[in-house]
Amino acid sequence: MNKISQLFQIKYPIVQAGMLWTSGWRLASAAANSGCLGLIGAASMYPDVLREHIQKCKQATNKPFGVNVPLLYPDLEEVMKIIVDEGVKIVFVSAGNPKTWTPFFKEKSITVVHVVGSVKFAIKAQDAGVDAVVAEGFEAGGHNGREETTTMCLIPMVRKELKIPLIAAGGIASGRAMLAAMALGADGVQIGTRFVASEEASVHENFKKKIITSQEGDTVLTLKKLVPVRVLKNEFYKKVQDAEDRGASLEELQNILGRARAKKGMFEGDMDEGELEIGQIAAAVREIKPVKDIVNEIIAEFHAAKKEVGTYEVPE
Amino acid sequence: MNKISQLFQIKYPIVQAGMLWTSGWRLASAAANSGCLGLIGAASMYPDVLREHIQKCKQATNKPFGVNVPLLYPDLEEVMKIIVDEGVKIVFVSAGNPKTWTPFFKEKSITVVHVVGSVKFAIKAQDAGVDAVVAEGFEAGGHNGREETTTMCLIPMVRKELKIPLIAAGGIASGRAMLAAMALGADGVQIGTRFVASEEASVHENFKKKIITSQEGDTVLTLKKLVPVRVLKNEFYKKVQDAEDRGASLEELQNILGRARAKKGMFEGDMDEGELEIGQIAAAVREIKPVKDIVNEIIAEFHAAKKEVGTYEVPE
Repeated sequence: MNKISQLFQIKYPIVQAGMLWTSGWRLASAAANSGCLGLIGAASMYPDVLREHIQKCKQATNKPFGVNVPLLYPDLEEVMKIIVDEGVKIVFVSAGNPKTWTPFFKEKSITVVHVVGSVKFAIKAQDAGVDAVVAEGFEAGGHNGREETTTMCLIPMVRKELKIPLIAAGGIASGRAMLAAMALGADGVQIGTRFVASEEASVHENFKKKIITSQEGDTVLTLKKLVPVRVLKNEFYKKVQDAEDRGASLEELQNILGRARAKKGMFEGDMDEGELEIGQIAAAVREIKPVKDIVNEIIAEFHAAKKEVGTYEVPE
Repeated sequence: MNKISQLFQIKYPIVQAGMLWTSGWRLASAAANSGCLGLIGAASMYPDVLREHIQKCKQATNKPFGVNVPLLYPDLEEVMKIIVDEGVKIVFVSAGNPKTWTPFFKEKSITVVHVVGSVKFAIKAQDAGVDAVVAEGFEAGGHNGREETTTMCLIPMVRKELKIPLIAAGGIASGRAMLAAMALGADGVQIGTRFVASEEASVHENFKKKIITSQEGDTVLTLKKLVPVRVLKNEFYKKVQDAEDRGASLEELQNILGRARAKKGMFEGDMDEGELEIGQIAAAVREIKPVKDIVNEIIAEFHAAKKEVGTYEVPE
């Protein structure tokens, strides 16, 4: 059996990314019911809201699901307590030191996975005792590593250093890309952008429409002096870029960024002044569909591509 | 038969990139003799030097080889005349408008391939009548597209638009990556960085050693306000970066860049003040080897990975 399917007790080795303003109980339960690991994204939820989403997710599916928690979350202790109290069995941690919380989860028999953007942090996560690693390339949406290592370069290098299961992320929105990531050495994939353009994602309709009409070159890794983040280019991004081009201070950049920019864009639908976190592969996503259809398409394409690989005529 | 092998009449669907200060007759003929398409890199050669390399390459191999010409070359007419006079049958063009020279080559039955960094330019090249396209991702060394599209994202999008053969480039230094690129929809691959760390590459020994000891995050896409180029970070790069960070003008950046920076670094071995063009996958290249051994390793790994793909346990 596939290592990722086995680890999470799921049908397909596909993780639906736990994204802020996107991955509520509707998306997570739909992904779980479609044979993937569904993840609730805690980053944009107050503790009480998170509890509600976990409870609703349990009602909506009897399949495994998990929660993604970035370690820069303000009410971390409270969030972790809710996760344990509600009996969540899988936690993805997407920033910070893997030593901080891994023993806490392992004591409670919770499966813990760290999201990293470099070989160095993948090794740290493995050494801290996590059960698996998500290695995320430069093309991924949202917060991103400073090394700018792409999925194509990152996965084989991480594979060489890891004994534990490896999940590839960044630029994966199709069955071909899933197969490619596995050929590079991943045991499974985490898919974000493709699921943002799903009926079940909780982001604003404006944002979904913006994704499916975006073109190549429309996303960019910005705010590199603060925390690098991949976004769709818009008015807000231009202000940031102009400031960076004239050598603005960190403080000035922080002021431009302000607060709740991602909420304004992704959740409230302000396509000009909001921060629109999404991956580079948005330019290849052309339709908003139910999660079930997205997963079926990916799996069908995966198997077609797998069959095709067998026919490659390259001499030994 | 594989489309790329057929187009160039070679054993493996692998192109050795025609890189400045790197790809002379020794590298191109070694690649050709190892079953790949060898390319001489005209970018760093005066016309007479190019003629000499073509003549020596013909003596060193009876296999097909070609020449890579960037259309920003100063003595373009003279170079094209030499290529025709010397009976070169394959030309890769790595910048500029595909309409300019394609009819000239096609009239002379020369196979012409354009190197592009975006879907938009891939379509332009196809429309201009080229025989194949190299689509090169953000992770590739040297000059690079402004869209920053990675190989993982670029190849499936280009594939969807092309009827002609597609060669993937950027981040490919192993048989696993070659297989992944083909799973994404490429018919073959162009490999650069891995061949820079070959015995036959004409770059300075200091540069080869620097490549095989480089770490993740050591390359960066810089000079984005002039022409984006991926280099190894060094003193020269830091000067450029400092200037960009304080909002330097294009003129100032041009002055810092100066002339013959790539020659100083790659050919003369000045690791501090030279411009060191190389791909992100340098961090995975750990040995300087003969071209023959590199090719054999890549092919062996390709077939092992191909076999492995057949064993993936993912339900339909």
